[in-house]
Amino acid sequence: MDANEIVKEIALQARQAAGVLAASRGAARDAALQCCANAIRAAKEPLQAENEKDLARSSELGLTDAMVDRLRLTDARIDAMATGLEDIAAQTDPVGQTIAGYNRPNGLRIEKRRCPIGVVGIVYESRPNVTADAAGLCLKSANACILRGGKEAIHSNLAIAAALRKGLAAANLPEACVTVLESTDRALVPAMATAEGLIDLIIPRGGEGLIRAVTEAATIPVIKHYNGICHVYVHNDADLKMAEVIVVNAKCQRPGVCNAAETLLVDESIAKAFLPDLARKLRLNKVELRGCETSRALVPDMKPATEDDWREEYLDLILAVRVVENLEAAIEHINTYGSKHTDAIVTDNVVAAERFTTAVDSASVMVNASTRFSDGAQYGLGAEIGISTDKLHARGPMGAEDLTTYKWIVTGAGHVRE
Amino acid sequence: MDANEIVKEIALQARQAAGVLAASRGAARDAALQCCANAIRAAKEPLQAENEKDLARSSELGLTDAMVDRLRLTDARIDAMATGLEDIAAQTDPVGQTIAGYNRPNGLRIEKRRCPIGVVGIVYESRPNVTADAAGLCLKSANACILRGGKEAIHSNLAIAAALRKGLAAANLPEACVTVLESTDRALVPAMATAEGLIDLIIPRGGEGLIRAVTEAATIPVIKHYNGICHVYVHNDADLKMAEVIVVNAKCQRPGVCNAAETLLVDESIAKAFLPDLARKLRLNKVELRGCETSRALVPDMKPATEDDWREEYLDLILAVRVVENLEAAIEHINTYGSKHTDAIVTDNVVAAERFTTAVDSASVMVNASTRFSDGAQYGLGAEIGISTDKLHARGPMGAEDLTTYKWIVTGAGHVRE
Repeated sequence: MDANEIVKEIALQARQAAGVLAASRGAARDAALQCCANAIRAAKEPLQAENEKDLARSSELGLTDAMVDRLRLTDARIDAMATGLEDIAAQTDPVGQTIAGYNRPNGLRIEKRRCPIGVVGIVYESRPNVTADAAGLCLKSANACILRGGKEAIHSNLAIAAALRKGLAAANLPEACVTVLESTDRALVPAMATAEGLIDLIIPRGGEGLIRAVTEAATIPVIKHYNGICHVYVHNDADLKMAEVIVVNAKCQRPGVCNAAETLLVDESIAKAFLPDLARKLRLNKVELRGCETSRALVPDMKPATEDDWREEYLDLILAVRVVENLEAAIEHINTYGSKHTDAIVTDNVVAAERFTTAVDSASVMVNASTRFSDGAQYGLGAEIGISTDKLHARGPMGAEDLTTYKWIVTGAGHVRE
Repeated sequence: MDANEIVKEIALQARQAAGVLAASRGAARDAALQCCANAIRAAKEPLQAENEKDLARSSELGLTDAMVDRLRLTDARIDAMATGLEDIAAQTDPVGQTIAGYNRPNGLRIEKRRCPIGVVGIVYESRPNVTADAAGLCLKSANACILRGGKEAIHSNLAIAAALRKGLAAANLPEACVTVLESTDRALVPAMATAEGLIDLIIPRGGEGLIRAVTEAATIPVIKHYNGICHVYVHNDADLKMAEVIVVNAKCQRPGVCNAAETLLVDESIAKAFLPDLARKLRLNKVELRGCETSRALVPDMKPATEDDWREEYLDLILAVRVVENLEAAIEHINTYGSKHTDAIVTDNVVAAERFTTAVDSASVMVNASTRFSDGAQYGLGAEIGISTDKLHARGPMGAEDLTTYKWIVTGAGHVRE
């Protein structure tokens, strides 16, 4: 079978499952999420055995240390997947919620009511826990999903899907609610992205190559989950001690993820007071610094930053550093080089904070907090389908509610237009 | 200049204007809307003179009567355009609204705040009043817009844009907030749809050819405004008198628009009691009927309907008629042949109404009301950018609020992740 036929066959099964989900009650879907969580915990050993197969190939596939970190299914991460599913089950059901409801002067009743999207395709790389999070959020929101992970995690992803399908079967829901594609053939991605009438939405999460492949092929709606070129800007009215703690956390606490900071911007009036001490702290944390000329004058052993460094998602212990003239220059740098993901300002000045949050065109804008908080669980969404760097439909961390659409329900008593 | 260069030059001007709009206050944009309304009223004579040029070419371009009706700028329609802008000005400003705001257990403050999308491209056919409505809604929501109307309305559209730009200038806002493309070169459409980083969203409104051209070319987000294959389903528990009034209104009140009914579905148990009388009423209204075999047995002078009739948007005084076995058969017909636009049930039965509204996968679902109410003004949105037949971001009538996105604003006091 060619890629289009494979996708069509799976999508037709998913559409049938989506019909069952759309007619299901919230309690039935929550019970299924609990069954899935139980199945994940019960499958710890097969999950880790399959994960080992992926890890064994990681150097052959040329994965960096950060990528290997993301790939590894530790005991804690397996339990976190199960807990994530339970957290999703505990959330309010988004389906059937009235977003707006009102009577028109002519007596017509207008209601905007949330409903599932249908069949959601998700294409992602690396972290296998995405499989459980994505499936759980789709199940919560009564959508069937078709998941296409990267080849570096294929064994882990299929093992997770097998556990989830056991959970679905135990809860009397169709296994086709969740499908992980068995083949890692690249042609499946454009086949999914052009499955009009079969797949309602495709969500690519990953690097530029993946996003390009989906965006250029797609004729169905896409929500891009692009990389994170996240900035921390230290304003001249910043508490410098707080700024240091935030920068170190944003860079070092988990450098291999998209909400880690990649570039530090420092106001020139405080650069001398701030940068040398910070550089010492970062070196203690094994961070390589790449600075602009002004910052290298203050911290001579920094490597020089090139134009490319401003556009680089290192996902590693490397930080680009630039001294900027003022708030407006920081905003311009972020809007020029950033990826519209997450950017932070450290300042005590309320006017500067307001200007920064209004003018920075990013999904999440932090004031006096680490970029690492840009995350569905941290925002209270239970888990996230990913972090949208698009502006349409959903922006930033996407939870179950973002996997719904709505319909207008209009009720009259024989109303006609004159 | 080739099409990409034309679009790039205009989009760069629009982006600058969008920056001014994003920093503007709501009162300034409302004042500009009033200036635009005044300018439209003041330009009645040049508008009608330019409209005459388009009307003079309408038979040469092969427009149907319904299309010519939609093209004509009567006194009433010019005044309605101006009133539409005033209605938009009177609405609540969507920009800056807090969609959700809460504190996390760790004290982080999370806020989801509405902001403009940026630059919106709209590609449409026929009705020139779309130019004023679309520009007004973009202005309200602080977006710049690039409009590409059909060649059949080019003189009218450019005249409306000239009036709107006078209004913008009078209100000290950049004229580049609103641009109608002067050329009707087809290559401009794919150029707009691939203007990544320049145009944030493209909205095609029109027939299949236009939608296909945009969807297949697009690498930027698209919200499709497809045609309306709208159904009225008369359930066996319907008040037949009410059903007759609704069907006649849905078909005849303005047949040339997308929310007019194209197909009537009748429950077989009431077909004999309902169809012959209805057919007489519709014939008095000059409606041509095309029926399935069962309906032709009851109303012998109906033409036979073919499979194609179930998929046809007549935009004319023609109605396809099908007798269906029951509610589920009606739902299946609508989900198979409809365009997910607007569908109505006439019934006194609350269980049937609930099942219909849940299972019909359309943007608007009417109970005991004419499909003709599916409209931004009728829903209280002031005016509409169009009626989305997509499920993502905005569905059904789209108002100013649907032209916004949001950002997450996260405020801490030196918060870092552990």
